Amino acid sequence: MALDNASEWKYISKRDIGVTCVAFSGGQPREGVDMGPEYVLKANLIQQLQDMNFNVMLTDNKIHTYKEFFPESDQPIGIVKRPRTVGVVNKILTKQVYSHAKEGRLALQIGGDHSMAIGTISGMSQAIKERFGRDLKVIWVDAHADIHTVESTESGNLHGMPLSFLLGLVKKSIEGLEWIEPCLKPQNLTYIGLRDVDKAEKEILKKYNIKAFSMHEIDRYGIGQVVDMAIDYLSQDGDGQGPIHLSFDIDALDPSVAASTGTPVRGGLTFREGHYICEALHKTGRLVGLDMVEVNPAIGNHCEDTVTVGCSLIRAAFGESLL
Amino acid sequence: MALDNASEWKYISKRDIGVTCVAFSGGQPREGVDMGPEYVLKANLIQQLQDMNFNVMLTDNKIHTYKEFFPESDQPIGIVKRPRTVGVVNKILTKQVYSHAKEGRLALQIGGDHSMAIGTISGMSQAIKERFGRDLKVIWVDAHADIHTVESTESGNLHGMPLSFLLGLVKKSIEGLEWIEPCLKPQNLTYIGLRDVDKAEKEILKKYNIKAFSMHEIDRYGIGQVVDMAIDYLSQDGDGQGPIHLSFDIDALDPSVAASTGTPVRGGLTFREGHYICEALHKTGRLVGLDMVEVNPAIGNHCEDTVTVGCSLIRAAFGESLL
Amino acid sequence: MALDNASEWKYISKRDIGVTCVAFSGGQPREGVDMGPEYVLKANLIQQLQDMNFNVMLTDNKIHTYKEFFPESDQPIGIVKRPRTVGVVNKILTKQVYSHAKEGRLALQIGGDHSMAIGTISGMSQAIKERFGRDLKVIWVDAHADIHTVESTESGNLHGMPLSFLLGLVKKSIEGLEWIEPCLKPQNLTYIGLRDVDKAEKEILKKYNIKAFSMHEIDRYGIGQVVDMAIDYLSQDGDGQGPIHLSFDIDALDPSVAASTGTPVRGGLTFREGHYICEALHKTGRLVGLDMVEVNPAIGNHCEDTVTVGCSLIRAAFGESLL
Ligand SMILES: [Mn+2]
Ligand SMILES: [Mn+2]
Ligand SMILES: [Mn+2]
Ligand SMILES: [Mn+2]
Ligand SMILES: [Mn+2]
Ligand SMILES: [Mn+2]
Repeated sequence: MALDNASEWKYISKRDIGVTCVAFSGGQPREGVDMGPEYVLKANLIQQLQDMNFNVMLTDNKIHTYKEFFPESDQPIGIVKRPRTVGVVNKILTKQVYSHAKEGRLALQIGGDHSMAIGTISGMSQAIKERFGRDLKVIWVDAHADIHTVESTESGNLHGMPLSFLLGLVKKSIEGLEWIEPCLKPQNLTYIGLRDVDKAEKEILKKYNIKAFSMHEIDRYGIGQVVDMAIDYLSQDGDGQGPIHLSFDIDALDPSVAASTGTPVRGGLTFREGHYICEALHKTGRLVGLDMVEVNPAIGNHCEDTVTVGCSLIRAAFGESLL
Repeated sequence: MALDNASEWKYISKRDIGVTCVAFSGGQPREGVDMGPEYVLKANLIQQLQDMNFNVMLTDNKIHTYKEFFPESDQPIGIVKRPRTVGVVNKILTKQVYSHAKEGRLALQIGGDHSMAIGTISGMSQAIKERFGRDLKVIWVDAHADIHTVESTESGNLHGMPLSFLLGLVKKSIEGLEWIEPCLKPQNLTYIGLRDVDKAEKEILKKYNIKAFSMHEIDRYGIGQVVDMAIDYLSQDGDGQGPIHLSFDIDALDPSVAASTGTPVRGGLTFREGHYICEALHKTGRLVGLDMVEVNPAIGNHCEDTVTVGCSLIRAAFGESLL
Repeated sequence: MALDNASEWKYISKRDIGVTCVAFSGGQPREGVDMGPEYVLKANLIQQLQDMNFNVMLTDNKIHTYKEFFPESDQPIGIVKRPRTVGVVNKILTKQVYSHAKEGRLALQIGGDHSMAIGTISGMSQAIKERFGRDLKVIWVDAHADIHTVESTESGNLHGMPLSFLLGLVKKSIEGLEWIEPCLKPQNLTYIGLRDVDKAEKEILKKYNIKAFSMHEIDRYGIGQVVDMAIDYLSQDGDGQGPIHLSFDIDALDPSVAASTGTPVRGGLTFREGHYICEALHKTGRLVGLDMVEVNPAIGNHCEDTVTVGCSLIRAAFGESLL
């Protein structure tokens, strides 16, 4: 496998990648997902990206736990758990991602739980707006919709709610999270891989008319057509070439492919379907950022398999191709 | 996952389900398939259906073994094994299914081996004829064709022959089975998932021009198109909206998905393909009955996986959707 | 499953198969692949083919190790390992295959490592030219491109280079291999299943404009369309019905399907996709030869699974169908 040198990056000025390692698990209850970045780096991702002729810059040259910023206490607000902790981590992460994206770097964020997308998309959105005056588009690859509001959530885990904050679905202010600026429009979001969506979330998707391709559509049309449809959907404004951020939850893959994750759901994407999404997205030349989240090395007996797949998906999104 | 409330049931008057538990293994030699209903109920299927807002009525409020009706002795007739036992069980089952279907209930039968389809389809067919003056249509999802005649069978196991009785392929009367009325026309039957069909069965399929989609067609066209073609095939008469009974043999699924079954065959339906069939069939609004058969909890180390898939397929056929 | 008697063999005069067992591992470093033929025969392949009404002739009625022809010493030439050994084996194999193909027999070669394709395709090509005055076409099913030249190879293993010899890509003569006549034109070759291709190989594929369907295309179009496209590509000259040789490396299959092979690569063909290729190729009536290679019974705990799949693929290519 090798780099597709011919592809053009529409929004990335040089072959620069800014990597931010988010060793954070506060958006959900299971321990271990904060070890994701450590395992991904040990699997030699940086070197792999350098071998693809990228200049790789690791934010502050370290893995961030953000623990120095954690509040001393963080009582639930209603049912919502750790709002101030999730809030402060994402506030810092917003700046980290912004500082890479503003310089025209491709921004790669390695998680960590999916609550971190609050920060990654906030930071990227702001930089894209400043650099190009454009709205950011997001492809969210996940078994779950992660769009619960603080009102609809039954678990209170913030990794199931990042999109409701980014979309500005709830006006109510929550201490620690009140700084979040809604920066994503419903028409600029599309899902791939959904298969475990709560009833309240389904109603939100309908209410805001959010485009989603569940496993049903992948079975019906094949991954090739689904990815075409997803990209076409995000190509209806301006020159049809708007910048795309990919937020990839590893649990979108079938548990037989990626077992080391906190909320696995049967009937997921195959190894090849996951890679196909990344390969096809790279070919658009429109990628500006990538989150790889919810790899939890503490789960399962062969976590290195899940870690390896995560690295492989990142390389595919950045241009590694089969031919 | 939640219930698709918007779907219309064309033939079911209220949200009533009549569930018949057929703890019967006499159509084949392996012990354990008679434990299928017990395991499915223990997996909480009734509650799951109630959570989908169905009114669930369990026939006689128990699991039926039918043992009180077994003949004292049941010598093979030619090569055919247990004809009188299989006959009497199906005679009673015919009435059980008829009594639900006549009242406009959705009829769910949990097996048990596939010989029980003699009764389920006989009973359903009669009720549909009386209520609507229409012929019943059947989608048979299976690795096998189950269409051997008493003359072509090499094993003598009646779970490989139900369709030859229902179609009336053999005139010869067999003691215990002589009561069966042919109630299914070849043009009202279609298969999905075939991959282990004996030579004599292939000749029968050709002779009667029976529509079958094997795994070859699923590979060629994808499950989406195959299900469309199967439903289109069963939509050529009258208003094109005739009532459909789904007879689902769990061995249609690949053994990696459903290992606890008596005659597994490699190269089967994926988890998602199996669910897609059920989801798509539900969307037609034409479903009137469902057999879930050949779950054998005595086989394999993780029978709960197969049981779980069986329950999940039932819910999908009854309206649970991914979005 | 049974034989499709209706199919016509365009180039095979009677139902004769000439089977050559190539117990050879000298084209690569891992022990065990030379045991492939022994295991395939023990799995009863000959009988299975006879049950399909083929007349089966086993070359010299034995498994060939060719050891009596090995040179006493065989120092690497540059980086190329065992050139004289690989050369002499393939020289004899060329004659063996030729002698079957010349008589109008279907030629089946059981490996053994993929360096043996030098001999199988050389022999087949010569016989086809003599019998029909036509060029041989080749479908190469593999995770790898096997098209390294003696100049581009980094491993020096000749099982990664057979196509460069057959296509005549390098003029430089290597002792032991100088007898090879280029007999395959780039436009008569097409790949299916590629997913681990070295950079130098990608450049060769581009330079010679060789048609290749990687796993990316299989994901995008589905195996049905990909096989149609591959066959269409090989149908552009003459009557569009030229003879086809299938060289099937078992590592084209996903490791979850065929684990016992020397260089497994994730993300491969499913069980059904592998069979679909063989079934579809049989239906063309144009098949003249088949290599089944790289089954290594010494690798993995359940080598009989891989052996069984190998036999099953052979039967599918020779006419066994699901319906
Ligand atoms: Mn998720
Ligand atoms: Mn998520
Ligand atoms: Mn079956
Ligand atoms: Mn059956
Ligand atoms: Mn290979
Ligand atoms: Mn090979």
